[in-house]
Amino acid sequence: MQREQIREIHQEGAYHFTMGPYHEPVARVESGETVAIYTEDAFGGSITSEEDRPSEALGPYLNPQTGPIYVEGAEPGDTLAVRIEDVEFTRDWAVSCLVPYFGGLTSTPLTTTLHDPLPDRVWKYRIEGDVARRGDWEIPVRPFVGTIGTSPAIEAISALSPGDHGGNMDVPDTCVGNTVYLPVRVEGGLFFTGDCHVAQGQGELCGVALEVSARVTVTFELVKNREIAWPRIESEEHIMTVGSARPMEDAARIAYSELVKWLSADYGFELFDAYQFLTQVGELYVGNMVDTTYSLVARCQKRYLA
Amino acid sequence: MQREQIREIHQEGAYHFTMGPYHEPVARVESGETVAIYTEDAFGGSITSEEDRPSEALGPYLNPQTGPIYVEGAEPGDTLAVRIEDVEFTRDWAVSCLVPYFGGLTSTPLTTTLHDPLPDRVWKYRIEGDVARRGDWEIPVRPFVGTIGTSPAIEAISALSPGDHGGNMDVPDTCVGNTVYLPVRVEGGLFFTGDCHVAQGQGELCGVALEVSARVTVTFELVKNREIAWPRIESEEHIMTVGSARPMEDAARIAYSELVKWLSADYGFELFDAYQFLTQVGELYVGNMVDTTYSLVARCQKRYLA
Amino acid sequence: MQREQIREIHQEGAYHFTMGPYHEPVARVESGETVAIYTEDAFGGSITSEEDRPSEALGPYLNPQTGPIYVEGAEPGDTLAVRIEDVEFTRDWAVSCLVPYFGGLTSTPLTTTLHDPLPDRVWKYRIEGDVARRGDWEIPVRPFVGTIGTSPAIEAISALSPGDHGGNMDVPDTCVGNTVYLPVRVEGGLFFTGDCHVAQGQGELCGVALEVSARVTVTFELVKNREIAWPRIESEEHIMTVGSARPMEDAARIAYSELVKWLSADYGFELFDAYQFLTQVGELYVGNMVDTTYSLVARCQKRYLA
Amino acid sequence: MQREQIREIHQEGAYHFTMGPYHEPVARVESGETVAIYTEDAFGGSITSEEDRPSEALGPYLNPQTGPIYVEGAEPGDTLAVRIEDVEFTRDWAVSCLVPYFGGLTSTPLTTTLHDPLPDRVWKYRIEGDVARRGDWEIPVRPFVGTIGTSPAIEAISALSPGDHGGNMDVPDTCVGNTVYLPVRVEGGLFFTGDCHVAQGQGELCGVALEVSARVTVTFELVKNREIAWPRIESEEHIMTVGSARPMEDAARIAYSELVKWLSADYGFELFDAYQFLTQVGELYVGNMVDTTYSLVARCQKRYLA
Repeated sequence: MQREQIREIHQEGAYHFTMGPYHEPVARVESGETVAIYTEDAFGGSITSEEDRPSEALGPYLNPQTGPIYVEGAEPGDTLAVRIEDVEFTRDWAVSCLVPYFGGLTSTPLTTTLHDPLPDRVWKYRIEGDVARRGDWEIPVRPFVGTIGTSPAIEAISALSPGDHGGNMDVPDTCVGNTVYLPVRVEGGLFFTGDCHVAQGQGELCGVALEVSARVTVTFELVKNREIAWPRIESEEHIMTVGSARPMEDAARIAYSELVKWLSADYGFELFDAYQFLTQVGELYVGNMVDTTYSLVARCQKRYLA
Repeated sequence: MQREQIREIHQEGAYHFTMGPYHEPVARVESGETVAIYTEDAFGGSITSEEDRPSEALGPYLNPQTGPIYVEGAEPGDTLAVRIEDVEFTRDWAVSCLVPYFGGLTSTPLTTTLHDPLPDRVWKYRIEGDVARRGDWEIPVRPFVGTIGTSPAIEAISALSPGDHGGNMDVPDTCVGNTVYLPVRVEGGLFFTGDCHVAQGQGELCGVALEVSARVTVTFELVKNREIAWPRIESEEHIMTVGSARPMEDAARIAYSELVKWLSADYGFELFDAYQFLTQVGELYVGNMVDTTYSLVARCQKRYLA
Repeated sequence: MQREQIREIHQEGAYHFTMGPYHEPVARVESGETVAIYTEDAFGGSITSEEDRPSEALGPYLNPQTGPIYVEGAEPGDTLAVRIEDVEFTRDWAVSCLVPYFGGLTSTPLTTTLHDPLPDRVWKYRIEGDVARRGDWEIPVRPFVGTIGTSPAIEAISALSPGDHGGNMDVPDTCVGNTVYLPVRVEGGLFFTGDCHVAQGQGELCGVALEVSARVTVTFELVKNREIAWPRIESEEHIMTVGSARPMEDAARIAYSELVKWLSADYGFELFDAYQFLTQVGELYVGNMVDTTYSLVARCQKRYLA
Repeated sequence: MQREQIREIHQEGAYHFTMGPYHEPVARVESGETVAIYTEDAFGGSITSEEDRPSEALGPYLNPQTGPIYVEGAEPGDTLAVRIEDVEFTRDWAVSCLVPYFGGLTSTPLTTTLHDPLPDRVWKYRIEGDVARRGDWEIPVRPFVGTIGTSPAIEAISALSPGDHGGNMDVPDTCVGNTVYLPVRVEGGLFFTGDCHVAQGQGELCGVALEVSARVTVTFELVKNREIAWPRIESEEHIMTVGSARPMEDAARIAYSELVKWLSADYGFELFDAYQFLTQVGELYVGNMVDTTYSLVARCQKRYLA
């Protein structure tokens, strides 16, 4: 399909800061349809310069989401497959920063201490082709959507939270070329996305990747009568499961037990054989160690599953 | 006030399974008003016999809440003080049970393993005066509300979850005679309660206390322009703070850091003196070790604070 | 027995900073014998004034232990019952302090961050009868031994660490009048103790109780062919189990599962009945939230176990 | 150097099941020396067939270590660099198995529940060139040493435990071609190793990799007056730090904060710039999620550090 033929979805009205069944759909799509979704950056564009102070610049809510997008025919018990076709930045710069009491190596509102906050600080990068540049730093561009999910059945979950609905997982494998599988828990699925990243390391250490606004092209496919408990991802080389929980070992347990069950259900492995096999060939990395729950990704190379 | 003069609040329409700003108020009250709120048990009354199998009897949602109750004049930044005047059981029996993959000494959906579930089992107790009796077991009646909270600003949080809004804390100190302080984060505060317990040990070990339906009498007092980050409780003898988080040490950190700040803000302690003083006289018990987050209660005896 | 008739045990040679099988016994005792053990404070007496700076005053090792004491006839598979008859302070003052990067509301070497340390600070108290006094603070004297344990089978564990051998549990129930049950894992059991506290709140919030040197009188009883996995405590009113682990929920799980098994093995409860019963009447408090592992105490009142 | 010229070190006397300062050195080496160390598998060779039952076959202690090896001139405050030159299997088969209450998706003695254990089971693999084969499974051979460490200052730590001394880290990057940096905390450093793996996935999911006996060739280099707090690893492409702790987020915090400090100390990054830079390019994977503490590896590609 030509780029110009793709339907574009802009947020009508205010961006949303929760994923839930209480918002009116911003668009309706068919299974099989490809659309281009415009997303704001995680700060709603409020940080633009290294002179900004995040403690002052940020509003009460973070991580604005575009959505919900209603998928025709989606019903609880289905799975929504979302292939990420493209992530195109809509500006030529990205920002990261230290937000007080947010990040991987700081006290936070959950891991509370009596320490003063780390300093406010902003880093701004120019995006030049396939690198993001700041001074002599050159960071390879590897675009992905930090936040992607569907509506929970009855809860409205903060856009800052990852969970079994997807959400703010911040795992670099929700990237161009990969397919994200999300549970459908309400009529229409109610898809949300936002929070695009020019690049991000594993763990998203300081809490803030290279944040950018973007045009995200995705293709929706509805998989009827197929229920998944947690998000899954498929790339050319891997099948993957994402677990989001605290403490971090619970996220690891979820990710790997979902992968054990996947091998057992779809790839002919007896349950404990799957457990054994993944012991020897599985991969397990930290997507984020900074959000309200931590997201870990368990992976198995497809070449083992022929 | 005479019992018969107290306004009674029954849930109009369906009970709610989330606490959030998306439900219509079931009643409106004034600051200073005393009302009697009728609550269902945590299972919506679906378990009535030791022959019931929780895995079959339970519906998709648990812990039905009465509310929201709109408090006139309440605005974000205020605190809602809720004095629990009475908890009267509306039946003469209580149940506890093992729910598959729920509890303190079992695998759960968050602490996932490959084990088969523990057995389904129900224990039913007769309430006779000040004891709950089953065979030769006699458990002292100590009624409290397991779930009590206000609406988050934008989220709708499962009634099974404790958090900084209160919710399903399952701490035995939200009992008759004590005052619970809850944050006001939306207009009207939007108060919910339910999940009354005839008795419960610290930790709520198997996940299910002595569950009962009840008539809960409370008096609301609005404290204007007083912001609290987490719920607080006051009894005749103690001031208390409740932290709810995972891992459990994060709940402990929250509870005690809120208590340190309370002593520092209101009782004349320099910050590190409060830290020191609570080291020597503070109390810290586990309310629940079974819910989506764990709730711990830090306490300081008032006699130290004269 | 008259106080003067009790055999006194002083550390011969250097105090030990590990509990393990690699040290020569400082004394040998018979089952049934009562002895008085002299212990240093947790800082080896190096902090004596509010002008001291812990970051400078403290040596490389903390928490000196008296021991090991060899119990005649003790063999792996036995249990050593240690009744704490008395804890007499050998000086009239106690100290607490902030040690950099140690405590419950600070970054630590395990919960690492980029924050600067909290300030160095010392609080010194006079012990006057049944209170410890500093300015207008009056803290009730409730003496207990912070550290008490036996040798692991082959490990030498830091005296700062609690574990299944006991060790630095810092739980206020290892106090006068109570009996501590410890596993015997090597010939002679090899008992160590130290780290007496004039008082301490639950959690030992800043990491340092009211530290004091003391004369600890204990009676040893050997329980042959009785194996325990984790320490237990018995008071006039309670039976108790101690679990020490991270994250804190693991310590809670250990403490309560040991108590479930104890009720099941010795008090006639079917396993899941014990789980149920403790759900309604059990108690669970935090002993320490500051050491290398956290120690939680699960308790059941004896009146339920007649 | 010719293979036949390399000095070989066999364990004299019994293998050790702790790392500590209490064992006599089995050999003494010079800085710069290359030696070949013979190691047993983690089960001491007690499991040889798929008919074996681990619950019966295993002895009281697991993970036998060869050592300690005394490095001439090593003193506290130095670092020992150990280049892993080769890991040659001394048999043509490997085993993995399920050990009751041990592994990533089971209850364990620390994460205690009331579940029955998972089944006893053994998987045996033939090693054929660069694959380990069992039925139609073909697992690429990627040999590494599961356990490698130096003596703590005064503790004797179980060979099953990872820690800041190294130990049973089970991270696949302690492999052929890489250099492991270990702290020297006692005279001679006292190096131990064992527990070779034919292959292992990230996380070591069921707790047992492809276990094998081996001849491990290493070159020791002493780095004088260079103190490290936690183990580090260097490959051709990466610098890496290993953190071992519970809960898992503490291991993540340690690994990344050590890497932040390393970039700051040796590569010209201001502290918060290092924090920022690793946010965008850092890698973080789980080595083991099964041992007494979890080991995570943080990595930075060297090409960023020119």
